[in-house]
Amino acid sequence: MTGKPDQSVANSDRIVISVDAMGGDAGPTAVVAGLAMSADKNPKIGFLLHGPVAELKPLIAKKRILDGRVEIRDAQKVVTMDDKPSQVMRNGKGTSMWATVDAVKTGEAAGAVSCGNTGALMALSMLRLRKMPGVNRPAIAILWPSSNPQGFNVMLDVGADVRADAQDLLQYALMGTSYVRNSMDIAKPRVGLLNVGTEEHKGHAELKEAHALIAENAEKANFDFVGFVEGSDIPGDAVDLIVTDGFTGNVAIKTGEGTAGLLTSTLRKSFEHSLLSRLAAVFAYTSLARLSKKIDPRRVNGGVFLGLNGTVVKSHGGADATGISAAIKLAFRLAEHGFAEKLAARLASVVELTQSNAGSQDAEHPPK
Amino acid sequence: MTGKPDQSVANSDRIVISVDAMGGDAGPTAVVAGLAMSADKNPKIGFLLHGPVAELKPLIAKKRILDGRVEIRDAQKVVTMDDKPSQVMRNGKGTSMWATVDAVKTGEAAGAVSCGNTGALMALSMLRLRKMPGVNRPAIAILWPSSNPQGFNVMLDVGADVRADAQDLLQYALMGTSYVRNSMDIAKPRVGLLNVGTEEHKGHAELKEAHALIAENAEKANFDFVGFVEGSDIPGDAVDLIVTDGFTGNVAIKTGEGTAGLLTSTLRKSFEHSLLSRLAAVFAYTSLARLSKKIDPRRVNGGVFLGLNGTVVKSHGGADATGISAAIKLAFRLAEHGFAEKLAARLASVVELTQSNAGSQDAEHPPK
Repeated sequence: MTGKPDQSVANSDRIVISVDAMGGDAGPTAVVAGLAMSADKNPKIGFLLHGPVAELKPLIAKKRILDGRVEIRDAQKVVTMDDKPSQVMRNGKGTSMWATVDAVKTGEAAGAVSCGNTGALMALSMLRLRKMPGVNRPAIAILWPSSNPQGFNVMLDVGADVRADAQDLLQYALMGTSYVRNSMDIAKPRVGLLNVGTEEHKGHAELKEAHALIAENAEKANFDFVGFVEGSDIPGDAVDLIVTDGFTGNVAIKTGEGTAGLLTSTLRKSFEHSLLSRLAAVFAYTSLARLSKKIDPRRVNGGVFLGLNGTVVKSHGGADATGISAAIKLAFRLAEHGFAEKLAARLASVVELTQSNAGSQDAEHPPK
Repeated sequence: MTGKPDQSVANSDRIVISVDAMGGDAGPTAVVAGLAMSADKNPKIGFLLHGPVAELKPLIAKKRILDGRVEIRDAQKVVTMDDKPSQVMRNGKGTSMWATVDAVKTGEAAGAVSCGNTGALMALSMLRLRKMPGVNRPAIAILWPSSNPQGFNVMLDVGADVRADAQDLLQYALMGTSYVRNSMDIAKPRVGLLNVGTEEHKGHAELKEAHALIAENAEKANFDFVGFVEGSDIPGDAVDLIVTDGFTGNVAIKTGEGTAGLLTSTLRKSFEHSLLSRLAAVFAYTSLARLSKKIDPRRVNGGVFLGLNGTVVKSHGGADATGISAAIKLAFRLAEHGFAEKLAARLASVVELTQSNAGSQDAEHPPK
């Protein structure tokens, strides 16, 4: 199972991405369709695809564009949405998810993509890839549609860990700015710390401590610390990166997604209301398609796990071919930029300054 | 300053609402316009209006409908958005906000409405009205557009206090269900506890404790406890009431508001994109107006403070006349239903069962 992939898949021009065929709501058919979309757009990409070979082989065979671009790695077991992370860590060997992550560890692939159970994927990624030196809690970073010139903000953590202390939040700021630089070409990202108000006297004591710690390190780490921001700044223009704990970040993105979903379904119903409004919808079609493209969550599909020795991208469980292709593109781009190595170098350069405050970086912080 | 309002304002058919003319972004002109809208729709309403009499008198005089419906109470000082709650508690006497709340305490008004500084308004309300027996932390409840039959969910706390322990979350469930019954005519509200997943093993330890405590009291308090819900359920159909701490709730509503704002501005830009799309917008006008009405935040303007001896409604600081009128309507409806008394009775009836778990209800819980 280890060693370099087939010559045909990993020729010298290609970057190989390891993909979990299983665990998504739409099954392996959508994943293979996503592979085909990516392969069609990007001649420099090759794939390791993990899952039951008997099921995957005919799906691959149907897509001409995937000829010689995919190596199937047989994995009979699947991690389901109901599996607990702790179970998967103990018994996950032999699952397609385990093998997907492992290919990054062995160096066969430059990045991994899975649509499966987020908690299990994070647990397996931590187990197999290990945390980078100096990282206490890894985080999940996502892109969020915003009124920024680049059209997106990055937010982390959105659910790797429900807790984060001041030191963790500083590390999120460091990892996040590195990610912003490598995914958006912004030299000096603007960073905000999520709170219930922008005044410095508001919020939890931990947040005030984090505010001081991040402000202290902003200049050395070459980012612009804007200070506290509010939920309304997540889709806003004030910052490029929003730092928060995984509990708050997770609630925020799900609330935002839900609200966007309610709005678009209400909009659809408005246009179905009467014969005249159906006619109006025909006229408005181009404008609505433009809106839909701008806010299409599939275009920004992919939560990146930061702080591990290797790149893992979590695709939305409900992703279709377009969404899966977007997640693959993200993993490819980060691999191409040598992001994991750059992040490791950046963290190493700041470990000294953070360690002076943190004591042992690998000690688990007790729950607050 | 105390005693019954003028005979003309508080005739026996009328319910008097105390309104802060100052502190909103749009100034007293918008507030007086809101009063006029409410007075026009509702012959049973009268007002005490607090602010600088020289400024208010000419504004009132311009609105015929307000003849004999408003008594101006002179207050020269104004609480600004930058004032800290602690300062306002010490030095707030003589401000329009103080007087607005005080009229509820003295019994001159059946409810209070202010567009001013939320933290200061909560601090003054707690100082003047005091917490209801059995309530540890008062909460702010808001309505949120949802795909429910009633079109809205109630969520609390959205920012009265950044902390809440299991016992507080149980009280939020009790106060919130009482509010749902009185504002929506739902006999047995469905209640969800906000978390990062619906599985019982997820989230903070405090949330697991709250889950057990709320489940235990659901039957006696006549609500249906659905269990953990996620951010996507806030605009969803799964529950009628969402219980969370003030930090998470505040971030969630601001993220939702921001996302809705981004979507509608993007939609507007889509229709301004070309001559053809401008033409399409003309055809689509009715459908867009229907959407706009459905999601118009002004229609659901008003955060209600729960757990105090009296009804206080916080209007959005940026509210226009329509928004202010909606907040006034909410205060009126709750007064008409005798909500404050019903809530007190409900809390009294469950104090016994909660006290067996909580120890002294009035002791402050130390920060977590």
